[in-house]
Amino acid sequence: MDYGLLFGGKSYEHEISIVSAVALKEVLDAQISSFIFLDGAHKFYLIDKKDMRSHFFSSGQYKKSPELVLKHGGFYTHGLLGGKGISMSVLINLIHGGDGEDGKIASFLDFFGVSFIGPRVEGCVLSYSKYFTKMLAKEKGINILPYIFLEQHDIGALQNLDYPLIVKPNRLGSSIGIRVIKDAKDIAYVLDEVFEFDSQVLIEPFKQGVKEYNLAGCKIQSEEEEGKFVFSVVEEPHKKEWLGFEEKYLDFGRTQKVKQADISSHLEEKMRQIFQLIYDPFFVGAIIRCDFFVINEEVYLNEINPIPGSLAHYLFEDFSSLLEQIYLPKQPIIPITYHYINQIQKAK
Amino acid sequence: MDYGLLFGGKSYEHEISIVSAVALKEVLDAQISSFIFLDGAHKFYLIDKKDMRSHFFSSGQYKKSPELVLKHGGFYTHGLLGGKGISMSVLINLIHGGDGEDGKIASFLDFFGVSFIGPRVEGCVLSYSKYFTKMLAKEKGINILPYIFLEQHDIGALQNLDYPLIVKPNRLGSSIGIRVIKDAKDIAYVLDEVFEFDSQVLIEPFKQGVKEYNLAGCKIQSEEEEGKFVFSVVEEPHKKEWLGFEEKYLDFGRTQKVKQADISSHLEEKMRQIFQLIYDPFFVGAIIRCDFFVINEEVYLNEINPIPGSLAHYLFEDFSSLLEQIYLPKQPIIPITYHYINQIQKAK
Repeated sequence: MDYGLLFGGKSYEHEISIVSAVALKEVLDAQISSFIFLDGAHKFYLIDKKDMRSHFFSSGQYKKSPELVLKHGGFYTHGLLGGKGISMSVLINLIHGGDGEDGKIASFLDFFGVSFIGPRVEGCVLSYSKYFTKMLAKEKGINILPYIFLEQHDIGALQNLDYPLIVKPNRLGSSIGIRVIKDAKDIAYVLDEVFEFDSQVLIEPFKQGVKEYNLAGCKIQSEEEEGKFVFSVVEEPHKKEWLGFEEKYLDFGRTQKVKQADISSHLEEKMRQIFQLIYDPFFVGAIIRCDFFVINEEVYLNEINPIPGSLAHYLFEDFSSLLEQIYLPKQPIIPITYHYINQIQKAK
Repeated sequence: MDYGLLFGGKSYEHEISIVSAVALKEVLDAQISSFIFLDGAHKFYLIDKKDMRSHFFSSGQYKKSPELVLKHGGFYTHGLLGGKGISMSVLINLIHGGDGEDGKIASFLDFFGVSFIGPRVEGCVLSYSKYFTKMLAKEKGINILPYIFLEQHDIGALQNLDYPLIVKPNRLGSSIGIRVIKDAKDIAYVLDEVFEFDSQVLIEPFKQGVKEYNLAGCKIQSEEEEGKFVFSVVEEPHKKEWLGFEEKYLDFGRTQKVKQADISSHLEEKMRQIFQLIYDPFFVGAIIRCDFFVINEEVYLNEINPIPGSLAHYLFEDFSSLLEQIYLPKQPIIPITYHYINQIQKAK
């Protein structure tokens, strides 16, 4: 397999995606045949492998790279004679946050019939909004922490809450914009801060000392028609009071393998069950990571990361062969027959 | 205002979209400056106004029209010197079903910064899947009929149900593929039929003699920052046992105004309340139609139509000025500063 790697995007996680891509290049090495960068002006560039260093992007040097357009079947260079197609077996969508995880890139790739690893538009929308993730979890009978969903104009809805609270922009990943409120008097100014990042905000109780675990996985092709699940080790992420942006940022550049967390097989099995309920069918085609809390031996879903940092390769034993086997959803065939219009024409 | 009108799409509702566009052309007349057709091969064409007849499309003659590409800022003709932009104030997305209502077109238009009337990607995903609509309604405390969500591989989950049942493809509009099951012995073959249309199926009790009502509306600009609601009359749609595809099909070509249904102001107010709960904030920018059941004086949400046939113009008193005032969501400004990458570079 030779992969195309798509990264960047117009989002708060633009830089994280660059770091993530540089790390994945180290891991997959010769298997990546093309690097495609989406900049903040929504332009695509073909990046030479030797230029895959973060400074090449932050300095703006990438703008001298050939620009690409996305058309039927894939990416093409510009050219008077129609341009040249960029060859690859499968594209990996590694655009974290906006564009990559909000459904835009998934829509493009599906529309133009490009084979890709990553969440499809339904999975994007369900996971990009933490509020919709809560809805999905409730529907599936999965434990979640209680929450309040706020839009800018109904701040008055907050009365008689227990503190501390955690306030999150509803549609941002990588801990960006997350604040803890320790006292009712701080709520107005903290909300102002968080609303800077998103017009929708999610408020939850902030439980100190809660155990946090991550589990990644996907469906791979198998003799069973519907594919079968492969799971990563369970990771207990490092954290301080809570994992801030800078820590997560560095985290995205990881290349070291991770050891299995010290948990009971009962808890691990419970996490795998929840993972399957969430994954199927809305995330088929993606390697996702589910982030859990464990409170009094009960597992709670915290959030779904449909494009984890450098695809969470460091959680899998044989990441390279996993990628080759991932089960990709088939596009439905839609017949356009003009049956009804022809009938009317005939009747006239 | 001069509108671009986008119609067609690769979907089971392709023909319906053509009929819908021809009807809207009659209504808006000179206000539409360009007609843009998306065919079943996912190519865009600029259609001359005089060619806006259904036969022009069913016969394939449209293929001689100029092909368009969607780029930054809008649609362009092909050309060695970069092509010519198609001028319009706002684009109307009138692609019913796949492409138009599943989030793909919304993603394109948002990505390329095209101002448009229609649902954004979140609203698309929530309404395109009848299952997600149920989730949203439950979250908001809105009455819905009970349901079972089925994927192809768990047909065995149906036991001890009361008949008749109504079986719907989860992600198709315009009543396509809907079947009624009167007896348990029919369930296997009816499911086979419905699964032809979608890999996800929704099953509900089929209530005979239920009153059905439609209400359309949107938010318009106002002195209040967040816009204010405008509602259509409440329509009681014609129906036989249930409204089949052919009736709905003809229905999409309507140009006659509709009279307010004979219901109490209490019920109408209830429908407006539910409409607002559903609309805000996920459907801002679109004219949507909510379809309701009334059972024992209680209002139930049946489904959300985020691009109703010819935009349900026939339900509004002054459709033309409504269109001019519709409140369109603003795109957030995302700063890309390379702050973190620069910090790391400095530290090295």
